[in-house]
Amino acid sequence: MDSQPASNQRVVVIGAVFDGIQLVKDLRGAGCRITLIDQRNHHLFQPLLYQVATTLLATSEIAWPIRRLFRDRKDVTTVLSRVTGIDADAHEVLLQDGARVPYDVLIIATGARHAYFGHDEWADHAPGLKTLEDATTIRRRMLLAFERAELTGDPATREAYLTFAVIGAGPTGVELVGILAELAHRILPPEFRRIDTNKARILLIEAGPRILPSFSQPLSDYAAKALEKGRVQVLTGKPVTEITAEGIVLDGKTIPARTVIWAAGVQASPAAEWLGVAADRAGRAMVGPDLTAPGHPDIFVLGDTAHVVSEGQMVPGVAPAAKQQGKYVARVIKARLQGKAALASFRYRSMGNLATIGRNAAVIEYGRLRLRGWPAWWAWGIAHIYFLIGTRSRLAVALSWLWSFVTGHNSARLITQGEKSRPR
Amino acid sequence: MDSQPASNQRVVVIGAVFDGIQLVKDLRGAGCRITLIDQRNHHLFQPLLYQVATTLLATSEIAWPIRRLFRDRKDVTTVLSRVTGIDADAHEVLLQDGARVPYDVLIIATGARHAYFGHDEWADHAPGLKTLEDATTIRRRMLLAFERAELTGDPATREAYLTFAVIGAGPTGVELVGILAELAHRILPPEFRRIDTNKARILLIEAGPRILPSFSQPLSDYAAKALEKGRVQVLTGKPVTEITAEGIVLDGKTIPARTVIWAAGVQASPAAEWLGVAADRAGRAMVGPDLTAPGHPDIFVLGDTAHVVSEGQMVPGVAPAAKQQGKYVARVIKARLQGKAALASFRYRSMGNLATIGRNAAVIEYGRLRLRGWPAWWAWGIAHIYFLIGTRSRLAVALSWLWSFVTGHNSARLITQGEKSRPR
Repeated sequence: MDSQPASNQRVVVIGAVFDGIQLVKDLRGAGCRITLIDQRNHHLFQPLLYQVATTLLATSEIAWPIRRLFRDRKDVTTVLSRVTGIDADAHEVLLQDGARVPYDVLIIATGARHAYFGHDEWADHAPGLKTLEDATTIRRRMLLAFERAELTGDPATREAYLTFAVIGAGPTGVELVGILAELAHRILPPEFRRIDTNKARILLIEAGPRILPSFSQPLSDYAAKALEKGRVQVLTGKPVTEITAEGIVLDGKTIPARTVIWAAGVQASPAAEWLGVAADRAGRAMVGPDLTAPGHPDIFVLGDTAHVVSEGQMVPGVAPAAKQQGKYVARVIKARLQGKAALASFRYRSMGNLATIGRNAAVIEYGRLRLRGWPAWWAWGIAHIYFLIGTRSRLAVALSWLWSFVTGHNSARLITQGEKSRPR
Repeated sequence: MDSQPASNQRVVVIGAVFDGIQLVKDLRGAGCRITLIDQRNHHLFQPLLYQVATTLLATSEIAWPIRRLFRDRKDVTTVLSRVTGIDADAHEVLLQDGARVPYDVLIIATGARHAYFGHDEWADHAPGLKTLEDATTIRRRMLLAFERAELTGDPATREAYLTFAVIGAGPTGVELVGILAELAHRILPPEFRRIDTNKARILLIEAGPRILPSFSQPLSDYAAKALEKGRVQVLTGKPVTEITAEGIVLDGKTIPARTVIWAAGVQASPAAEWLGVAADRAGRAMVGPDLTAPGHPDIFVLGDTAHVVSEGQMVPGVAPAAKQQGKYVARVIKARLQGKAALASFRYRSMGNLATIGRNAAVIEYGRLRLRGWPAWWAWGIAHIYFLIGTRSRLAVALSWLWSFVTGHNSARLITQGEKSRPR
């Protein structure tokens, strides 16, 4: 957008998620002029988003203004705007207001949204969990369901309001039902006068044969048992065939449920479309071993937007993988600037699998190491405090967790923002 | 709603603001069956709402679920619903879903909304500050204005985005411009690359002859000087005659300003209409010296909903006044239950006037005691920490303030929730 001295490489990064942020950090001192474009003003720590949705954390505890992260980096310009396309011939990114941002090197790290496998009409009834707004929407619907159950005089309606269905049993689904069960069975009961929130039915529904499929069978079995002990009903091998405002259909039978949450599938952002390159079924752009888009040596696609293969396996869409890709691409760019030989292909080093199961239980798998129960839960907590950005957030999240642990109450139980257009 | 033992007085309280909360607290052990109705699930600490609007505090730090406050009070039933009217003949409160809540004693403490003096069309362009949603709306618009100023190539548009007008110079208006000036002149400058947020124009506009009219002249003068030192333009004796999407009109001249905040007037909730009793110009129900509505000895109206006179003066719409009224009415109800003689009339004891002026300055007036500058600022902070509910909020707010004070950064700078229908 500004005119650039010819010596300065113009690096444009779309998306300020883990990969984009890591890349910009690692390009410090490389002498590039970096433009970081995002449609939001904040970087979000997505692994804890489910705790905002379930009232444990406040929104601002896991989100930071992008500008603030790079305030001392005069080589970084932050742009709050939405990208509408890429003109690869002209080497320009197109923004919603018609502006064009020229680049020498382009990094697309725009992440993914939830996908409904061709059932977009389910989106209204079963929100997913990718943004802060998604989290406050889920929080609002969940809390309102208890309120409406308390108000209604009709037993069937009450039961429908007290039935919560989470679809998809990956880490997000498991973590959501874990805290939801805590809320219904431990925190809320003394607060209601007409309903017994202990009777809330919490369903975790998975089309595949077991929950946490990315974990080994024993941990997956342990997690299912731990959830059932917490009075979550785990239904595996059950594809949902319909979702309406009234409930969900499983095995041809309708289960009335007024709160349905979608944690089952994602769709990559349209980077592959923008570039006209091949994509996998989830829309992820197929990239080369150096993470460039085929035919576009100056365009890198990473994170959840890309189908990356490392040692014959697809790299999973987790935060450590995204960070590693950000680091790798920063190294590639610096090597090119210094005229060095091409780097070796990107190699993913698994940092293990982690998931919490409500209060005081978690599963961790790191290589051959398997951890479960409360030691895993504490290890998980410490790791996440460590990965948060800045002392302020670490203090705030630690305070929220400690408070909840010691007093048994969650501190962000707000119903905010109405949904005007919804008839329910 | 439930059937009640005949011995139990049915006390219905509408509104969970300071007065309603205080009353319910004070009725502990009185043997009443209390129903507390509010259209929100949270009690809000309104005196700090301007700090949410200006990114200093997070929403959940100053709001608590009403149910949680009274979870141990089996005599209190919380109802999340909107009241649509009162059937005083039948002794019933009407709810939006058609339900009716019978009462023996009714307390209306529904507060006030901002009012535009017959210019409701200004509401879209100049949001007021009464709810958490108001606060996040103001926060979003303010932060977006800086973002759009950074993006635009047109100098006039940039200037309009960098002009912020707060209308009304009571404590809320003064406190808003105070932190807004901090944000523009101290926190944001290193984060933008194209604009100099130091050049942001911050206007405090007052129709009356001076700012903080409820304070004595010397403190009001001091506050105006302190604001001007912080590069706020204070315009007194200037009634705003028009507000559009483009700006405001003062003295027949248009000042382009894309962010306008309304802190100028309030309108009581429609309690007087519901009851068919006389009201003052701001819609406050005229009540007797015992805070009952004329002709309705079993209906009390208090706080911002009522026009209360104490020692010949109208009681101001501040939190301590509301709390005192809640306490008083609880005493009246208990005296009646015990068959005691009527209590003396309500008497307001002023707890003084307080307002902050940005960082490290405030004004406090308590009887003949006048405090200003940093001692007033610290006294103000300690008083507000003290009045917050619960250790958790005190810790969280203290952490946020301490953080901001020591590092010079605010921690809740999020743009969330879009405004779909607005063209700007």
